[in-house]
Amino acid sequence: MNDKPKKQQKLKARLPRGFVDREASDIRAVNEMTGKIREVYERYGFDPVETPLFEYTDALGKFLPDADRPNEGVFSLQDDDEQWMSLRYDLTAPLARHVAENFQQIQLPYRTYRAGYVFRNEKPGPGRFRQFMQFDADTVGAAGVQADAEMCMMMADTLEALGIRRGDYVIRVNNRKVLDGVMEAIGLGGDDKAGHRLNVLRAIDKLDKFGPEGVKLLLGPGRKDESGDFTKGAGLNDEQIGKVLFFVGIKDYAASAGELAQLLEGTSKGQEGVDELNTIGALVTSAGYDAGRIKIDPSVVRGLEYYTGPVYEAELTFDVTNEKGEKVVFGSVGGGGRYDGLVSRFMGQPVPATGFSIGVSRLMTALKNLGKLGADEVVAPVVVCVMDRDVESLGRYQKMVQQLRHANIRAEMYQGNPKNFGNQLKYADRRGSPLAIIQGGDERAQGIVQIKDLIEGKRLSGEITDNVAWREARVAQVSVAETDLVAKVREMLADQAEDRKRQS
Amino acid sequence: MNDKPKKQQKLKARLPRGFVDREASDIRAVNEMTGKIREVYERYGFDPVETPLFEYTDALGKFLPDADRPNEGVFSLQDDDEQWMSLRYDLTAPLARHVAENFQQIQLPYRTYRAGYVFRNEKPGPGRFRQFMQFDADTVGAAGVQADAEMCMMMADTLEALGIRRGDYVIRVNNRKVLDGVMEAIGLGGDDKAGHRLNVLRAIDKLDKFGPEGVKLLLGPGRKDESGDFTKGAGLNDEQIGKVLFFVGIKDYAASAGELAQLLEGTSKGQEGVDELNTIGALVTSAGYDAGRIKIDPSVVRGLEYYTGPVYEAELTFDVTNEKGEKVVFGSVGGGGRYDGLVSRFMGQPVPATGFSIGVSRLMTALKNLGKLGADEVVAPVVVCVMDRDVESLGRYQKMVQQLRHANIRAEMYQGNPKNFGNQLKYADRRGSPLAIIQGGDERAQGIVQIKDLIEGKRLSGEITDNVAWREARVAQVSVAETDLVAKVREMLADQAEDRKRQS
Repeated sequence: MNDKPKKQQKLKARLPRGFVDREASDIRAVNEMTGKIREVYERYGFDPVETPLFEYTDALGKFLPDADRPNEGVFSLQDDDEQWMSLRYDLTAPLARHVAENFQQIQLPYRTYRAGYVFRNEKPGPGRFRQFMQFDADTVGAAGVQADAEMCMMMADTLEALGIRRGDYVIRVNNRKVLDGVMEAIGLGGDDKAGHRLNVLRAIDKLDKFGPEGVKLLLGPGRKDESGDFTKGAGLNDEQIGKVLFFVGIKDYAASAGELAQLLEGTSKGQEGVDELNTIGALVTSAGYDAGRIKIDPSVVRGLEYYTGPVYEAELTFDVTNEKGEKVVFGSVGGGGRYDGLVSRFMGQPVPATGFSIGVSRLMTALKNLGKLGADEVVAPVVVCVMDRDVESLGRYQKMVQQLRHANIRAEMYQGNPKNFGNQLKYADRRGSPLAIIQGGDERAQGIVQIKDLIEGKRLSGEITDNVAWREARVAQVSVAETDLVAKVREMLADQAEDRKRQS
Repeated sequence: MNDKPKKQQKLKARLPRGFVDREASDIRAVNEMTGKIREVYERYGFDPVETPLFEYTDALGKFLPDADRPNEGVFSLQDDDEQWMSLRYDLTAPLARHVAENFQQIQLPYRTYRAGYVFRNEKPGPGRFRQFMQFDADTVGAAGVQADAEMCMMMADTLEALGIRRGDYVIRVNNRKVLDGVMEAIGLGGDDKAGHRLNVLRAIDKLDKFGPEGVKLLLGPGRKDESGDFTKGAGLNDEQIGKVLFFVGIKDYAASAGELAQLLEGTSKGQEGVDELNTIGALVTSAGYDAGRIKIDPSVVRGLEYYTGPVYEAELTFDVTNEKGEKVVFGSVGGGGRYDGLVSRFMGQPVPATGFSIGVSRLMTALKNLGKLGADEVVAPVVVCVMDRDVESLGRYQKMVQQLRHANIRAEMYQGNPKNFGNQLKYADRRGSPLAIIQGGDERAQGIVQIKDLIEGKRLSGEITDNVAWREARVAQVSVAETDLVAKVREMLADQAEDRKRQS
């Protein structure tokens, strides 16, 4: 027997790269936000359905933008029967699998929503995470663009339900069929040119980021960024580039209709796409959504490859200050489109579908910027201090805590080392506790408890500039009979709430 | 160019083995349940904190029961910098990493809760899933067993908040130090016997499942199950087995105190464990929790290896009928214990901690059995039928839907193929819709809409036994002016709610 235990190498506690822990305020904010989103979706007649985090890799498909190689961008591993499984990279591909697998039981149109984590196996960077939450809604089995129009209205209503004012957002709508028509018009039609088309679409998608000049380079020979990195271009000639830039530059869709029709003449689906956009425009208008809220915009591309018809994007149009101190438009918080091919990959029949996805953290950041979250601030617990440490006294403190809790008051008994009373008050103070409850031997003999008002103490500390004076200042403290503890605590908490209300 | 597109192999839509999709009723039930749990935890002064689904494999540690080989039981993959990452198998090990990593910023005692998915890479079986949800609460930095006592009371309060009656649950408490004392008493003390001890503990843990006779076999030579599979035993002799069985057979802890003290005499921590249990008993009693709710019980083991002190388990004591038609006690819905070594693995200093975990699906199943979930049934959406299919008419239907939604009424326009009106009603019926709104050309000319009461129709169908008579029966239907649509729909929904209330 080895008497001397081996000295163990100390483990290093570290998060995997590209992942983050989430703190209380973020979790509460997301809960508040997703609760409101859920309400809107329910009102629109959508029901929840969720899939697990794993899918078989082949069922997931390879639809990630900027990832042409197999498994690029996706976390995958082999099951013990050698089948490859991947963590979902979005919520749409798994929904398609779910619908196809349960097609006989599912009543179409199938209107569902879901929130959940998705994973991207990408190089982590600042603000670029490998696990993040999406909140999706989808209608499967609806061929008409009235389903797309509904999605756009639901996005608009959702943003307003979250407190974003009309004028501070816009839902921009385009159509892949029109984009495909433009591709055809510049000689990039046909299955064999899919890769080339994708490069052109990705260049267009950078319009917000690099402007028309940057996109011109990306459509042509390529673009060098500030750091000197070169991105290869799509290699179009000047005439082709001109047509693409005309198209994405259209500001007033109706005014350019004639010229656009000319560009799309003879293409297989270009005009059909334009007609669909017109129908969407008419439907949302008659339901009271003007172009300030839902707008046809030819520069919307959406990165994902699987879209086949209308695509849409929710953009927040107010300015925020970026890390360089520049004022920029907040930008996209979600989007989606029609994916008529995604379910039918599994089926012998076509299954039309459309849906959209909200980037939950990004939207939460926006709402925090606007001060639209955390209105109902959570009050920290009342702390019952441990003055005497024998089991009987502990039992007495515990009983007080339970009385407070059963009266629906957040409370806790101090659970650290009770030897130093100062540490207990420091704990309560750092925690932001509103009140501390104190009962030593003397108080106990008299049947009373002391209640220290820690918020009032803090307020006084603001008024007293001299540090020594502060330490000596008596913070607000009252003595009450033990039997009145709950009533007095409730009263003091109500007073503090009143103070907060007056201050804000 | 290849004109003939390659015939693509049709993909098979299938869930990975051991994973499940979650339907609306389950999702709503879990939301309702976790909301109530959260309320109790908040009242106890706990705040939310969450970690990502991945951890570095070494940081996670190997604490899974029945999995001694590296990575056994865990989903792992290698990152592109060759570090191994694993999906978390519980929420405790990641919390330990979080605390250690942020130790300078964290205020101790650190009282937090979290709900989230965990993953076990096990052979899937009926009711045995590889992804499931846990809901945990932990206090880190609290050395005294008053923190363990608090956990037990919080478990009891949580179960009652979920509607489980007093008497239908019990929180059973034991202490690893006592168990370790028993091990020492039968000659299984010391680091080198850790493996052997674990086999004994696992045998004890099967007491509920196999009874004392089965455990006797598992402690001794081994046990053959009904299918003939043989489980190797721990190889104890009769005297050792006798002592273990005496210990786990203790029903009344106080009555056996003398005999137990004798058994534990001379062991290093046995009596300390007994004292801790006595303190827990005294604390919960003085806070008003009797032994019917929180009970010291020497047969509680808890599978996880990292426990170092008190362990506790929440058991539902009412009978349910199992798949074989037998009446059985529902059993454990969660548990936990003290894990003083888990954080300190990363640190140069001891960091005491205790916490417990609820198995969310299992508890949900229990609550559904008791009829304690889904009380606020969600009413399906009102369906606005599509009678005319031109864009203008679609716009009109869309507008009606939006009016209903903005009046906070769940509603949708039929989004399937509108050619067959019968299909629309069939859709609304299968969906459980309360009302269908119909406006054809005639109604439009008169400025009216028809509202069909689909629930009243269903009720009538129950009264009419003859199938033909049912088809010919007129379901309740009213005509109202278009301007009165929202008011009338609201009125009819209120009537239906009244009916439901009367029936239940």
